[in-house]
Amino acid sequence: MATLPAEPELTVAVPVYYFDTDAGGVVHNVAYLRMVEIARSELAAHLGWSLQEMHESGVVPVVARTEIDYLKPARLGETLQLKARLQALEKVRFFLEFDVMDAAQATVYARCRQTMVTVKLATGRPQPVRTAWKEAYPHLVQTR
Amino acid sequence: MATLPAEPELTVAVPVYYFDTDAGGVVHNVAYLRMVEIARSELAAHLGWSLQEMHESGVVPVVARTEIDYLKPARLGETLQLKARLQALEKVRFFLEFDVMDAAQATVYARCRQTMVTVKLATGRPQPVRTAWKEAYPHLVQTR
Amino acid sequence: MATLPAEPELTVAVPVYYFDTDAGGVVHNVAYLRMVEIARSELAAHLGWSLQEMHESGVVPVVARTEIDYLKPARLGETLQLKARLQALEKVRFFLEFDVMDAAQATVYARCRQTMVTVKLATGRPQPVRTAWKEAYPHLVQTR
Amino acid sequence: MATLPAEPELTVAVPVYYFDTDAGGVVHNVAYLRMVEIARSELAAHLGWSLQEMHESGVVPVVARTEIDYLKPARLGETLQLKARLQALEKVRFFLEFDVMDAAQATVYARCRQTMVTVKLATGRPQPVRTAWKEAYPHLVQTR
Repeated sequence: MATLPAEPELTVAVPVYYFDTDAGGVVHNVAYLRMVEIARSELAAHLGWSLQEMHESGVVPVVARTEIDYLKPARLGETLQLKARLQALEKVRFFLEFDVMDAAQATVYARCRQTMVTVKLATGRPQPVRTAWKEAYPHLVQTR
Repeated sequence: MATLPAEPELTVAVPVYYFDTDAGGVVHNVAYLRMVEIARSELAAHLGWSLQEMHESGVVPVVARTEIDYLKPARLGETLQLKARLQALEKVRFFLEFDVMDAAQATVYARCRQTMVTVKLATGRPQPVRTAWKEAYPHLVQTR
Repeated sequence: MATLPAEPELTVAVPVYYFDTDAGGVVHNVAYLRMVEIARSELAAHLGWSLQEMHESGVVPVVARTEIDYLKPARLGETLQLKARLQALEKVRFFLEFDVMDAAQATVYARCRQTMVTVKLATGRPQPVRTAWKEAYPHLVQTR
Repeated sequence: MATLPAEPELTVAVPVYYFDTDAGGVVHNVAYLRMVEIARSELAAHLGWSLQEMHESGVVPVVARTEIDYLKPARLGETLQLKARLQALEKVRFFLEFDVMDAAQATVYARCRQTMVTVKLATGRPQPVRTAWKEAYPHLVQTR
């Protein structure tokens, strides 16, 4: 089995296309969440959990809660940098953070936090957080 | 069983929201196809084939081809009128037409034609066009 | 000028179409935020602030923060009921709440809260909350 | 000024995420057109016409017609290859072709053709096709 990266984070470049913008001339608030999903999917794959495995196993991470703060508007033609980070692990939930930044990573346009639950699609039942993640990132495990 | 309407057509009102527009200040070309899907789903239900039946039976209409001509730009805050019409029936394919119009139905913004195939999702196999439609609209049946 | 409704709230019916769902078989998490925007736009119009006025004046409500809790999955073919409510008014910010419910309004699928800022698009500058809203709903005004 | 590439075509990798799929378990028909827009924008940039230039100049390519044939369903977790090609140039219109393929470029999932018109956004007026393109690709110029 592949070793997990030392830091459970990843930065992904996401260009802004016309379909991401709205008549206000800037990136539409909902489009950021599609970008967050791109970063989340790539982070999961980077941490050994690919979309293909999700699809085949029927055990998938489900968004239980999203918080997003819109700080400054991004615009057409920019290439955004999405920094995604696994931030904490509980028994069945895990927490992710995302910074949506400009190309130079100097300005944060939006900041997002998501609570995820691992779910077996067939039953809708929550599943334990991946053991490999708990072993690789013991400092992120929250015991309450 | 419910009787089908005399004319296999339906006009549906679809407001334009910010998420339908782009930084060019008008409705984005892809958004029209989401509107066409609204009209298509409502027309199918009007003709006795609801999304719920599709979902439960696993027999669904699949888009095999889309043609759309963009004639004039629609704008934020308009309520578009989508006129959907069943236009022809073959053995396994059927054909739909859509006019995307302004609120007064005076201007056509876009005109769309879709070729549909009825498919059993589990096998991917094409299925015969609904018998009820052939019986209700014999003049639409194409024999080649 | 039209009188504002006694209660600053509105319930809007939003059907679930295929484009709202994902390969997990349920409504996709991002699709709920498009539905929230439908409800938000209709609530704003109900309270005297139409998309057309926004577009023409260039003074628009901008989403500064979204929080959304996903409680239960909604499915294809349902007609969701979105209850939108103006919940508080500050100097330049106002707060909205949304319940995404099933057709019978018996189950809450998702609960959303948004912080809005009124902005002049040309300058990006925040504008005071609408006077008409403060006058009509004085009990919602927060003084800090 | 940069020299244009010898062949006016580009192949772009586009992963399939959950938001691209629907409850039928496959990529949704509308999602392909978002992917086509990604490929179109990258091809335009490759041919010296960036989204930033479009946004700043207010002279933009507008989709006048889309035709798309859906041949086979693509699935979650695949990385699609979108091959985009400038196919013909008229006075004010130009024509693009797109193949949506699997990762190995062995299977074509969808084939798309778009008619584009160059438009000045402020006036809505068609503009002549870019001179640089006519000079670089004289064999594509259609005289009628």
